[in-house]
Amino acid sequence: MDNRPIGFFDSGLGGLTCIPYLLKALPRERITYFGDTARTPYGSKTAATIRKFASEIADFLIESQDVKMVAIACNTVSAIALDDLRQRHPKVPILGIISPAAHTAARGCAPENRIGVIGTKATIASGAYTKKILGENPALDIYGQACPAFVPLIEEGIIQNHIMDLTIRYYLDQFIDYNEIDTLVLGCTHYPLIRKNITKLYPGLRIIDPSEEILTSIDDALTRRGLHAEEASGTAPEAEHVFYASDLSENFVNMINLIFSGTGYRVAFRNFDLEAYIERKR
Amino acid sequence: MDNRPIGFFDSGLGGLTCIPYLLKALPRERITYFGDTARTPYGSKTAATIRKFASEIADFLIESQDVKMVAIACNTVSAIALDDLRQRHPKVPILGIISPAAHTAARGCAPENRIGVIGTKATIASGAYTKKILGENPALDIYGQACPAFVPLIEEGIIQNHIMDLTIRYYLDQFIDYNEIDTLVLGCTHYPLIRKNITKLYPGLRIIDPSEEILTSIDDALTRRGLHAEEASGTAPEAEHVFYASDLSENFVNMINLIFSGTGYRVAFRNFDLEAYIERKR
Repeated sequence: MDNRPIGFFDSGLGGLTCIPYLLKALPRERITYFGDTARTPYGSKTAATIRKFASEIADFLIESQDVKMVAIACNTVSAIALDDLRQRHPKVPILGIISPAAHTAARGCAPENRIGVIGTKATIASGAYTKKILGENPALDIYGQACPAFVPLIEEGIIQNHIMDLTIRYYLDQFIDYNEIDTLVLGCTHYPLIRKNITKLYPGLRIIDPSEEILTSIDDALTRRGLHAEEASGTAPEAEHVFYASDLSENFVNMINLIFSGTGYRVAFRNFDLEAYIERKR
Repeated sequence: MDNRPIGFFDSGLGGLTCIPYLLKALPRERITYFGDTARTPYGSKTAATIRKFASEIADFLIESQDVKMVAIACNTVSAIALDDLRQRHPKVPILGIISPAAHTAARGCAPENRIGVIGTKATIASGAYTKKILGENPALDIYGQACPAFVPLIEEGIIQNHIMDLTIRYYLDQFIDYNEIDTLVLGCTHYPLIRKNITKLYPGLRIIDPSEEILTSIDDALTRRGLHAEEASGTAPEAEHVFYASDLSENFVNMINLIFSGTGYRVAFRNFDLEAYIERKR
C-alpha cells in the first residue's frame, strides 16, 4: 500500500484525456499532474528539445512531488524520451503510453489486419509504435501518418465542425484507403476528442485509444509492486488531485473542472515556473 | 554609422515575414534573428509567461549579441511586453511591430472607415492595436478578432487549400460582415502568408501588413540615431545574417534558405539553449 500520488505529465492539455479513465479504473488513487503549457506543443519540436523538457518535468515530479510512479500521458514524450527517463530515475516506475496500446494492437490483430498509427510529427518519425507492435507480432502491417494540425484545431475547439472533418479527410482519406487500414491507433492524447468525427467518417474502423489502454498498465504496475492506495480518495483532506501548469491559463482550469465536475473529488491548481525550479536545483 | 547587426526576434518562424522587406529596404543591414522555436507559439499563453520569455530573448540579443537595435518581429510580444523590455534595456532602441502599422491605419483611414484587427488571443485581448490607433485618431471604429487556428495551419503548410479558406471564413465572415470592416490589419507576422487567401475571399478589403510597416520605423530610428550600416552587407566575410533558434529544426532552416535564395547574402544557423544561457547568467 502506498498513498502517495501518481505523477502524470504531458506537454500540455492532451494528457487530461487519461484522467476520466483513471478516476473510473482506480478511484482511490490521487494524481499529481504537470502540463508544460508554457512550452506546449512538443510534437513538432526536435528530439533533443523533447528529451530536455521531459527530463525536467520528471525531475520535478519525482524529486519534489514524491510521486510513487510516473505515467507519461503524452505519446510524443513516450516515443522520444521514455528510455532516457528510466535511466535517469531507475528507482521509480515510469510508464509510457505507447507500450500498452501497442500490446493491445498486436494481440488483437490477425495477420490480415492493417494497422494505422496517427500522431505528432515526432511520434510518427520515431517509429515507436511500429517497433513495439512488430516486437510482439512481426507479421503485422503498420503504417504511420503525422497529423500536426489536429492538436491546435482541437485546442481551439474546432471539433464539431466541417473544418475538422475536412482536416481529418486531408490527412486520412488517402492514408486509410491506399493502405487498406482497418485498425487505427490514436497515437496522441488529444485525438480521443475527435474519435467521434473519425468513426463517423470511417465507420468500419477499429479504434485503439492509448489514453484508455495505459490504465491497464498502471493498474498492473501498482499491483506488481504493491503500490495501490489504501484510503478512498476524496474523503481525507489530503486526498486531493493537484494540477500544475507552467502557464496556468483559464482554459487549463476549465478543462479540468469539466472533467471533475460531479465526481466529488477535490482539485487544486498551481502555476509553476519549471525553468526557475531547474535553475534553483543547480 | 554602426555596423553592428539589428536584432530581430519572434516566438518562432512568423517574424521571418519581415525579412524580405528588410533586405529590400535596408540592404546594407545585417540581422541577428532569434526564433524561440522550443517554446513557440506564444499567442495563446498568459501575459506573464510571454513577458518572461521576451525578456530572456532581449537579454540575449542585447547582452550577448551586441545588437544596435531590437526589432520585435512578433505582434504578441509587441502587444504584451514592449514597455517592459524598454524599461529593462533603456539604452538600446527597441521597436515594436504594432505602432508603425497602427500609425498607417490611423493616418490612412477616414472617419467612415471601419478597421478590423486580427491576431493571436494575447494580441487581441491586449487591445494594443485599438489603443494605438485611437491614440492617433479617436474618431475611428476598431474591431478585434482572435484567430488562433491560423498559425498552426500556416506552419503545417495548409494554405492553398480549402481547409484554410474555410478557417478564414470561420473567423472572418461574420466579423467582417457584421462590423462592416473595410480595412484589415494582419496583426500576426504569420498572416502575410495567407494574404492572398484573404483578398480572394474579401476582394474589397484594404490590407495593412505590419511586417512591412515596421521597416519604415526601423529606417527612421536608424536615421535619427545615426545607426545605419556603412558597408554593403554580403561582401565582407563578417557581413552575415545569423539565425538563432532555441529548437533548430529543418523547417526553420528551409524557410530561411528559401527567403535568402538568390540574394547572395551569407546566412548562418545556430541552435541555442536559451534556458541554459539564462541560468549561466545568474
